[in-house]
Amino acid sequence: MLRTESGVPAASTAADVPAAPPAAATNGANGTNGAVASSGTKALMAFLAAQKDAVDAALDAAVDASIAPAGPETATISAAMRYSLRAGGKRVRPALTLAAASMFGGEAGMAAAMPSAVAVEMIHTMSLIHDDLPAMDNDDLRRGLPTNHIVYGEDVAILAGDALLALAFEHVAKATEGVDPRRVVSVLGVLGGCVGARGLAGGQVMDLESEGKGDGEVTMSTLTWIHTHKTAALLVASAVAGATVAGASEEDVARLRAYATKVGLAFQIADDVLDVTASSAVLGKTSGKDEAVNKVTYPRLLGLEGARARAEELVSEAKACLDVYGDKAEVLLGLADFIIERRN
Amino acid sequence: MLRTESGVPAASTAADVPAAPPAAATNGANGTNGAVASSGTKALMAFLAAQKDAVDAALDAAVDASIAPAGPETATISAAMRYSLRAGGKRVRPALTLAAASMFGGEAGMAAAMPSAVAVEMIHTMSLIHDDLPAMDNDDLRRGLPTNHIVYGEDVAILAGDALLALAFEHVAKATEGVDPRRVVSVLGVLGGCVGARGLAGGQVMDLESEGKGDGEVTMSTLTWIHTHKTAALLVASAVAGATVAGASEEDVARLRAYATKVGLAFQIADDVLDVTASSAVLGKTSGKDEAVNKVTYPRLLGLEGARARAEELVSEAKACLDVYGDKAEVLLGLADFIIERRN
Repeated sequence: MLRTESGVPAASTAADVPAAPPAAATNGANGTNGAVASSGTKALMAFLAAQKDAVDAALDAAVDASIAPAGPETATISAAMRYSLRAGGKRVRPALTLAAASMFGGEAGMAAAMPSAVAVEMIHTMSLIHDDLPAMDNDDLRRGLPTNHIVYGEDVAILAGDALLALAFEHVAKATEGVDPRRVVSVLGVLGGCVGARGLAGGQVMDLESEGKGDGEVTMSTLTWIHTHKTAALLVASAVAGATVAGASEEDVARLRAYATKVGLAFQIADDVLDVTASSAVLGKTSGKDEAVNKVTYPRLLGLEGARARAEELVSEAKACLDVYGDKAEVLLGLADFIIERRN
Repeated sequence: MLRTESGVPAASTAADVPAAPPAAATNGANGTNGAVASSGTKALMAFLAAQKDAVDAALDAAVDASIAPAGPETATISAAMRYSLRAGGKRVRPALTLAAASMFGGEAGMAAAMPSAVAVEMIHTMSLIHDDLPAMDNDDLRRGLPTNHIVYGEDVAILAGDALLALAFEHVAKATEGVDPRRVVSVLGVLGGCVGARGLAGGQVMDLESEGKGDGEVTMSTLTWIHTHKTAALLVASAVAGATVAGASEEDVARLRAYATKVGLAFQIADDVLDVTASSAVLGKTSGKDEAVNKVTYPRLLGLEGARARAEELVSEAKACLDVYGDKAEVLLGLADFIIERRN
């Protein structure tokens, strides 16, 4: 058994999170500083704060397990993997997985979903490492720190990304406990699908192809395809994985899929808006990149206010997908609100 | 259901392959031209020839399924994925998977193992695409053709590799049929492990770190670690995956693991020898690269003859691991012989 699953403190369910201001709200490194905390996002922030240590410990333990027995041979690659995993992410995707699992399986569901939560963060981190490479977005700065290839070199950065991607699947396969193996296989299929030609990688290729093209050549339909696959696919997989291991029905999974697709699209629109309006210091990465590469974005097609309005509309639609769950969906509703309230 | 599994012609089992010279033996693109065909390798070549079309069709169908519904958005990434999948590989790893599956499950075992066979070739192809990148080995030529990044650009090549890696897992999860899902989960764990810090990626990082170091700094022990993880790990996973889906016992899996570890090490030693002795035209890639980057290799540590002898010794040991299976292991025994008889 991997160390990941033992010793993780029992986590609160969505229904009994404390109402007091959580630690994350005052933690600049978590990127939640300055967010306008509505009552919905307060529940999310409490959940994030309650889960963050467990997720961080599980990520670390998963890397430990993958190099056991640890030796000098795995020192560099594991250091490169850990560097980006530890670089201060908000852990939004693991929170989505755990919150979805909590809705359908309570505390036991969340425990069963921790390997999947870890996996989606690994996939996300892999995509950041590879996107930052000189041949891609050529970014030196990520979450306020030097990017992986600046610290470890391009070759190691590419390989650390590959290793994180593979570890995501290995970890779900080896560390998920107490779940019908058919559901584990299903989760692994969903995770694989969100990275490939109709996921992160395909969305990113289309995004690269759209750079430098005029507004007439990149339509709203193309832009929506790009964001649905580049950004929303992993959020969908995060939610679906959590729900699936916790025993959700196909109908439940379909609702979460619709919710997360809309949240993902809103997330990307908000990102485009922040790229125009926020400073690099607040973003923790270089701002104004979209305009610098003449990229077609939602703000460019709809105007800043039009883009903001579209994001708000999507968030409302996303929340409506979860009406049937009432208060049990509190954290997921808060996550949707957080998307448009966040400042970085 | 994916198209992959239907319509694949029923394949011969290891026990009834034809003795006549197979098509592959006369096909230069398959890389078997000029090989000294012993009776053992004849069985392998017949097996490779009988399986190659089915594997190629299954690879293509797996990419089709991953982009369905196909549209202009997935045109570039799927073309880049197919370009390297179709670039004339010998399909040694899928053959290993299918031959192992045949030993334990006959024709039904091979059919169940086809998604795993496809997956190991995708993982292998991903590793070639990423290894050829300018930041890594910086190779323009692979299997006699321009490398992926020369044709599609570095950015798309990185993403096509990521997509192939993810598709390997997605495909095994979605397309494996008639197998206990616990065995499918086990295969997915094994496949993940062979890529990560103690697999391809970790082995490659150590290989990069050893470049330019003197003989005294890179010991035989380090070199063996590199090759065991960079090369043997995927061969082990290929054999273990085939055996596992076909119902092999833990004892069987342990034997195959030992066999494939030794075959993998012999394979890498033979590669090092060929890098010194063969021309770029015969290799289909740039020869003499190891010396150009001052790399410590088996020929450098043991001399050419010493390296050849070590490879032969490993092949004998590998074959001995399968003694218990008698003639049923014919193809796997042939594969071991092929490793040191091949000329490219």
